[in-house]
Formats: sequence, structure tokens, C-alpha cells
Amino acid sequence: MKRILISETTEHVGKVVKLAGWVNVRRDHGKIIFIDLRDRSGVIQTVIIPDQEEAYKQAKEIRSEYVIEIEGLVKERPGGSKNENNTFGDLEIEVQGIKILAKSQGDLPVDISQNNLELNLDTLFNHRHLTLRNEKIKSIFKVYSELLNAYGNFMREEKFTEIKSPKILDSATEGGANFFKIKYFEREAFLAQSPQFYKQAGVGIFERVFEVGTVFRAEPHFTSRHVNEYTGMDAEMGFIENFGDVMNELEKTMRFVLNWIKEKCPKELEMYKAEISEVKEIPRLKLTEVLEILEKEYGKKMEGVDIDSEGERLISEWIKKEKDSDFVFITHYPKSLRPFYSMPSRDDSSFTETFDLIFKGVEIASGGQRIHDYDQLKENIEKHGLNPDDFKHYLDIFKYGMPPHGGWGLGSERIVQKILDLENIKEAILYPRDVKRLTP
Amino acid sequence: MKRILISETTEHVGKVVKLAGWVNVRRDHGKIIFIDLRDRSGVIQTVIIPDQEEAYKQAKEIRSEYVIEIEGLVKERPGGSKNENNTFGDLEIEVQGIKILAKSQGDLPVDISQNNLELNLDTLFNHRHLTLRNEKIKSIFKVYSELLNAYGNFMREEKFTEIKSPKILDSATEGGANFFKIKYFEREAFLAQSPQFYKQAGVGIFERVFEVGTVFRAEPHFTSRHVNEYTGMDAEMGFIENFGDVMNELEKTMRFVLNWIKEKCPKELEMYKAEISEVKEIPRLKLTEVLEILEKEYGKKMEGVDIDSEGERLISEWIKKEKDSDFVFITHYPKSLRPFYSMPSRDDSSFTETFDLIFKGVEIASGGQRIHDYDQLKENIEKHGLNPDDFKHYLDIFKYGMPPHGGWGLGSERIVQKILDLENIKEAILYPRDVKRLTP
Repeated sequence: MKRILISETTEHVGKVVKLAGWVNVRRDHGKIIFIDLRDRSGVIQTVIIPDQEEAYKQAKEIRSEYVIEIEGLVKERPGGSKNENNTFGDLEIEVQGIKILAKSQGDLPVDISQNNLELNLDTLFNHRHLTLRNEKIKSIFKVYSELLNAYGNFMREEKFTEIKSPKILDSATEGGANFFKIKYFEREAFLAQSPQFYKQAGVGIFERVFEVGTVFRAEPHFTSRHVNEYTGMDAEMGFIENFGDVMNELEKTMRFVLNWIKEKCPKELEMYKAEISEVKEIPRLKLTEVLEILEKEYGKKMEGVDIDSEGERLISEWIKKEKDSDFVFITHYPKSLRPFYSMPSRDDSSFTETFDLIFKGVEIASGGQRIHDYDQLKENIEKHGLNPDDFKHYLDIFKYGMPPHGGWGLGSERIVQKILDLENIKEAILYPRDVKRLTP
Repeated sequence: MKRILISETTEHVGKVVKLAGWVNVRRDHGKIIFIDLRDRSGVIQTVIIPDQEEAYKQAKEIRSEYVIEIEGLVKERPGGSKNENNTFGDLEIEVQGIKILAKSQGDLPVDISQNNLELNLDTLFNHRHLTLRNEKIKSIFKVYSELLNAYGNFMREEKFTEIKSPKILDSATEGGANFFKIKYFEREAFLAQSPQFYKQAGVGIFERVFEVGTVFRAEPHFTSRHVNEYTGMDAEMGFIENFGDVMNELEKTMRFVLNWIKEKCPKELEMYKAEISEVKEIPRLKLTEVLEILEKEYGKKMEGVDIDSEGERLISEWIKKEKDSDFVFITHYPKSLRPFYSMPSRDDSSFTETFDLIFKGVEIASGGQRIHDYDQLKENIEKHGLNPDDFKHYLDIFKYGMPPHGGWGLGSERIVQKILDLENIKEAILYPRDVKRLTP
């Protein structure tokens, strides 16, 4: 008999089927044993009675997380015993045979069969191989998988070419301290903290490129928004009029991505009571305007023209209230806050044609127009107190004729974090890496 | 006027359009100037005559790789002057206006307007930002982009969940020497040389997982098949009967992927005179059988039960001749040649239930069934002369109940290399990294 998935049992009521999966929980009521079986499609209750001697003997021995194969009859559960918390709660399997495929070893450190695991982060991650098997935690990564899918699909629809840029660099440009050093054969090298330079080169080749890839950040942060390794979703596009075109494209991207997740992950969103509202026109506010609002509405005053995470949270709150938007673009950051390749603002060159995209209080993307003129770029490198000789390979790109262009870097995990309202970004990463944690 | 792409000019014959792109080549015939304009969709000839005074003045000044905007009339070229080498060779643009968006600096080190760049590898990669703009070289990466697309699409169709596993590891397990060391804050860490352990954990969570991600290999190879950083396309699946199921799945994957590329990239394949033949049932030969054939047919004798790259090339040649297949699975490698987690063969435990997939003479994938039993795995670690304590976090996966499972690692760049018959794998990487090269 061929194994079917638990989700397929609904089409086999009254028939004998073969299922396989993990023992989510086993309840021994003496005369009758219940095993909740879990596979990739869901959880279903199975019933083992003493009349089924062989199966009953096996069931006595079985423990949580054993991997088993079950043959049995699919039956409707009587009205009163239906389980409303379970998608397949109106069915059960009357077991005829059990085969143990693999055992678990001793007592498990965490009971993952509960709906909500109330664990502190250390316990959650120390037993990550196990805690990821919890239905609710697992669903974070179904959303994550669909995010990657949606992003790729939309970028291709918009005629962006997917690229893979190198992660090992010969020099720590773009601002030294944030790079991890690596021993590369007989010399020193660095891990890329963004595909920035390569995606710009990509514009010279393909006009429009995107990359989904690992980003390494050697920043010793201890916040709920930072990790040292994450998956960036980058894009860069040529022949733009101004950085408004980049924001337009990103706005369309977010609209597509959120609609996609809404459509593909109703069960997962429901588990987190997460609601995805329509992405309308995203309000765009200059940073200076944002600061005025923060001062006027919240009495919050920043030192100089800058914004902190509290400010991002407050302006997001304000925009939700005033414009009913989960998103807001903050634009025109001062030159001093942005990398040397940022295009100076046409109105006031002490500002830049750059933006951050704030989603439910957290910055999820950073972007803008880049300088495309060789001489201007070289001059700007010097103005930032850097040495153009250190940027030879980067500057070469602009020797060959580069169109006006811009792009963004999106943090994939932050998007999932905010969609599901997870407290910490690490919850949206299978095996997160921070200053202290490199395992499992 | 809104910019259109060169590929759209066919729908605008007799109309004035705006195009933008790079100057592929400029030919000054005195009275008349020709500019071949290149954008992401192709190349088209434009004609500038002295009557268009402003445009003519601009055209005099323009050089290769300038970025320009052109307005002009789309016209059919007279029969005799059609260019058969160019997709848009039966059209030309009668220029009415030119705007220079960006200039190139001085003479270019390489003329990329030729159909075939006959460059040695060093020149090709030293000027990579520029050489990638060549139409024929660029097309390698259109094929590459579609390979990534096809792989993701098929894996999802087969209900594999996409994962992203960490690339920074706390220990160099799986065989020390091939890992790059990194300085991770105050301690030492290592770059992942495969997602092996994490994708196996993924089976415990999602049953079927795939990952497209960077793989780091610290091997000082100097061959046409090796690089130190590449993009792996991995997969791992649970509840298999035996490793034949894994080969079946990989066979279906390759069939889907090659058909996809055939359909999406006809122009690119044509440039390389590459033919993609149908993926029929892929022959499966035991390594010992392969060695017999090599000795009998080619007089090639290996030391012990092992195969080298020449052997792979020859068996591929033989299978093409005998079975008309571009692919062959070599199965049942001896225990000593495979990692400790490989499932011993059911017939003879000195061999393993593993395979390599050879495509046109080169190994593009390696895979097999893995040990899923905790005790057996621990014992096998010891048998391989390794210390189970060093594999604590890996072994934990198997404490929690793991189904029979297996999978593969595919090298994405090698597939493109073999499809297009490129001499060196590095040609299929935008910015390749080898022992000596970390730039540009």
C-alpha cells in the first residue's frame, strides 16, 4: 500500500490507508491507546484497541517522536469528540497495524505537542532540532518559504535577472568594522556584508538584477531586530528617473509578496492571529518631516537629523493612525548617515536620495539612488574620508558607462517577524547566529 | 515619451520610439554614423545623418559603452543590408535625437562588441565588469538564472520546503581540512562546506527540504571543474524506501530543469550551439561495474575501487554510445570513499547506498541514503575514526526520531558549464573565486 498524507485522509473516509509520520503525543487510557500522528501536512488522531493485538503491543512501547507507519481505517469522529483545534479533528484512524521506523532516545527535553510552546529563547534554540517540529513554530518557516517564493516570482515577472554574487571579498570596503575576517589560504579575506557593489555591476550587464543570499554582519548587537547572519533579498535597477522609481518598484513588490502570503498561508497566519492588510499607496515622508511629527505628536526630540528604533516605532504608529498604512517610507537621510555611493539630493546636497522602508514599526528595507558618474563617485569617496585606491575594482564599473540606477536591500527574516508579530527576529530563522550562539 | 526595449521595436515599425542602452559599437562613415545600441533585450543598429544636426554632433563625440537615450523612427532595413547575425537585424532606427546619460572613461581594455571574445581566462576575469556585458557571455547567466528558477519551481511542485541554513559553524566537522576559518568576535568559527547536517534536520521538521545557497570549499584545486565558492542546489527527503527513490527524484528534477532551459533559453542555447536532448531513464551502474567496463573497453585500470575524472569522462562517453544518455548514475561507492553518515549497502556493508550523477563526463551531483538510526550513526562515526562528542549537535537530530531519508547536492555552475560546453566552470560564475583570485 502506498503512503498517503494526513491531509489526504479526508478523501479516504471509510477506507483503509497507510500513513507515516511522528508520534506527536500518545495517550494510554489502558483499554484504548490514542496516538496523534504528525506528518508534513498536519496532525490526526489514531486509535488502537487491544483487539488489534500486534498493533496494541507496539503502541504500548511507542513514545513521543517515534517515527511510525500506520495502516488503518479512516472514520468520521462522533459529534461530541471532534477536535476543533485540529484541521483534521473530525476524522480519526482505527489502527490495524503499526510499524516502528525509528525510535526517539529517552525522555524529550521539551514537549512539542502543545499548541503554544512557552519557552525562553535559550531553551527554544538549545533544542532547536526538536522545537522546530512544533506545528506552530514550523508554520513560521512555511511562511518564510513562501516569502522567498513570492519574491523570486515577482522579480522575474518584473524582468529582473537572478544573480549570485561572491561572498568572499579581498578587502573590507564599505566601512571596515562590520566585516568578519577569514583565513583564505595564505592570506586574509572578508565575508560580504551585502551584495551592493556586485548588484550595481549587474545593472551594467542585465539592467535589472536581484539576489537572495546570505549576508554577514559582524556587529555585536543584542537587540530583537539583529542577527549576525541573515538572508538578504536585494534588487537593483537601471534607467530610473529618480529614486521614486525604486520606491514604486519596492511598493509593488511588497504588495505582491503580502498578497501571496495571504493567499498561500491562511492556516499559518491564523495560528498567529496575523492579519495582512492591503498594501495601498505607501506614504513617503522626509526624515526632517518625520522628526517634526515625532516632536509635535510624541514630544520626542532626536539629537541632530537622525532617527532611532523608538522613533521608527512611533512614526509607524502615527502613520497607521493617520493613513491606515502598515508601511511608511522615510526619505532624504543626511549624507553623513548614508554610504558614499548614495546619490546627493537634487534639492539640497547635504541630504541623499535614499529611503528606509518601515513595516509595523521596524525598518525592513534600505535603498535609494546610487551615484553613476565616475568622477562624482570618486570625489564622494574622498569626501567621505576614504581612499579611492581602495575602491579600484568598484570604480572600474563606472569607467564603462553606467545608467542612473538604484535599488534596495530587504531583510527577509524581519518581514516574517513583523507579519507574524514575533517578539524576536531569531524566531524567524531556523538556526540563528548571534554573538554568543553558533549552535546547534 | 516612455522608453521601450529594443525587443519591442518590432511592434513599432514606422513609428518614433525612445530607446536607451549602451553603445555596443560606433562606426563613423563620415557622412553617416552608425551606432549599435544594446539593452537587456538585444542589439539594434541606429543611423545618424548630418541633417539631424544636434544628434550628429553628439554621435561624433560618443564612444563604446556610453549610456545613451535615443529617439528615432523604426524602419525596415532594405533587403541587402539586413544583418542575419542579429535578432533585430532587419530593423534600424533613424535617429532624431540623442541624450548622453553616462560616458565611459578612455579606451576600453577589451572590445566586447564581437560575437566571440577570444580571451584567456585572466583577461576575461580581470575585466569582468566589462566582459560580462558581451552578448554571448551575458547569455550564460540568463541560462543560469533560469536554472535557479527551474530548480525552485520543481522542488516546490514536489512539495519540498525551501530552507536557509547557517553558513557560520562552530566546528569543522565532516572532515577538517576543507573548511575556511573565520574570526567570529572573540572566537574561531568555520564556513559551511555544505548544508548537509541542517537539511537532514530539515527532514525531521518538513520531511522534504531544499536549499539554494553558497558553499565554501577550502580545497586548493587548480582544475577546470573546481572553485572555492559556488552555489549548491541541495535537497533531502524523508520516508524513502531506499536510495533508488532519491535517484528517481533527481532524475525527474534534471528532466524538468533541462526541459525548462530548452524552452526558456532558445536564443542563448543557439549562441553556444548547445543541444539539450531528452532526459530518458538514466542508466544506473555500480562503481564496480563501471570499473570493469573501463578496463574492458578502454584498458583503464584504477588503483582499488575508485574512479578519477578521466574515468568519469570515459564512462560518460561509453553510456552515450551504448544507451544514448547524457547522464549516468554511478552507485555503491565503497565505505572508505563516503562520509560516515552514508547508509551501508544492504548487500555488502563495505559499500554504501550512495551515488554520483555524471552529466556529459562531469560529476554534477552526489547523494545517497543517510543513516537514520542514532546508535548506528554513533557507531559509524567511531568506525570512521571520529569522536562522537564532536558531533553532539548533529547526533541530537537522531535522538528525536528520524525517518529513512536521503538526498543530493547539485553543483549549479557545473550544470550550466556542461549544458553550454564551457571549458572552465569559472566561466559560469559571475565573479569566480579560486586560490589566487578574489577580485574583482
